[in-house]
Amino acid sequence: MNETLKNIYDRFSCRDFKDSPLRREQIDALVNAALAAPSAMNLQPWHVIMVTDKALIDELDREGMRIVGTWEDKSTQERFKERGGKLFYNAPCLMLILSDGSTWGTLDCGIQCQNVVIAAESMGLGSCIVGMAGVPLGGEKADEYRKIFRFPEGYTFAIGILFGEINSGKEPHEHDLNKVSYIR
Amino acid sequence: MNETLKNIYDRFSCRDFKDSPLRREQIDALVNAALAAPSAMNLQPWHVIMVTDKALIDELDREGMRIVGTWEDKSTQERFKERGGKLFYNAPCLMLILSDGSTWGTLDCGIQCQNVVIAAESMGLGSCIVGMAGVPLGGEKADEYRKIFRFPEGYTFAIGILFGEINSGKEPHEHDLNKVSYIR
Repeated sequence: MNETLKNIYDRFSCRDFKDSPLRREQIDALVNAALAAPSAMNLQPWHVIMVTDKALIDELDREGMRIVGTWEDKSTQERFKERGGKLFYNAPCLMLILSDGSTWGTLDCGIQCQNVVIAAESMGLGSCIVGMAGVPLGGEKADEYRKIFRFPEGYTFAIGILFGEINSGKEPHEHDLNKVSYIR
Repeated sequence: MNETLKNIYDRFSCRDFKDSPLRREQIDALVNAALAAPSAMNLQPWHVIMVTDKALIDELDREGMRIVGTWEDKSTQERFKERGGKLFYNAPCLMLILSDGSTWGTLDCGIQCQNVVIAAESMGLGSCIVGMAGVPLGGEKADEYRKIFRFPEGYTFAIGILFGEINSGKEPHEHDLNKVSYIR
């Protein structure tokens, strides 16, 4: 098995990061992985925002947890409380991937997301894909956050990814063979 | 630079395949990369169909080209004619990724797609992501194809990926630095 396949199979969702910041070459490698992603007709229907301002990540975390606390269904709040009470698990780096809303926008943003996640794994960094970043970004402070994070006009949140040194890890999920069929 | 980053940066959309079939271990590695993909809450909102019946891929190709030929806008037909007149570039293997239509379905299928694409690159295989597979699958013969490819109930086409030995390659696209901003 080659190194890349090993990275693909071993990667897990990290939910416990050290707060040490990423090094410049790590950030550059992740951003280049994002920019190298394929897209329909190479239209690149995305914008990538690389956030390494930890105070701002923490502020977004608090606002997200506040909103989750207002939900009638308490299961999400309980889940994050069990995991330490932080939406973003103390990660020092958050990549926001925005879509331009075109036909292949969402799927292409998923393609881009996984390019970056595998790049992180190859450098020994933990990663966690966080759809929950859309909660504070889409809440009462949405307009304020669009300004703070400098969303380009016409782009909306597609997905977020946390990166950082791994404090504690876990096993990747098991393969579900029922999810495949073969036409030979 | 590690091998995985190299695979991520070097990968290009292959549009010229040899028709030699994939080996069993190559197919297994690609399928395992698909099953290893992360998804929201690990719900795995996908189904993967691995098609290695070249005659069936060719039939889907012909039906797709027939439909494209009926479109008033001739630009798509012209583009594929310039590339050799085949929608699927003679590839011996087509992976269909279907979504269950849930909230994160499309994005998660994109994540899964890129895991498989990078796996292919690491094994020296060419790959091409083909949204155009949705054309014949969604045309007049949609019901027939759903049976032939055994689509599970409730799942719809998200994306297709072609795999095969590379007959001729090309350079990957250039990175567009305007697609990134930094919040430090």
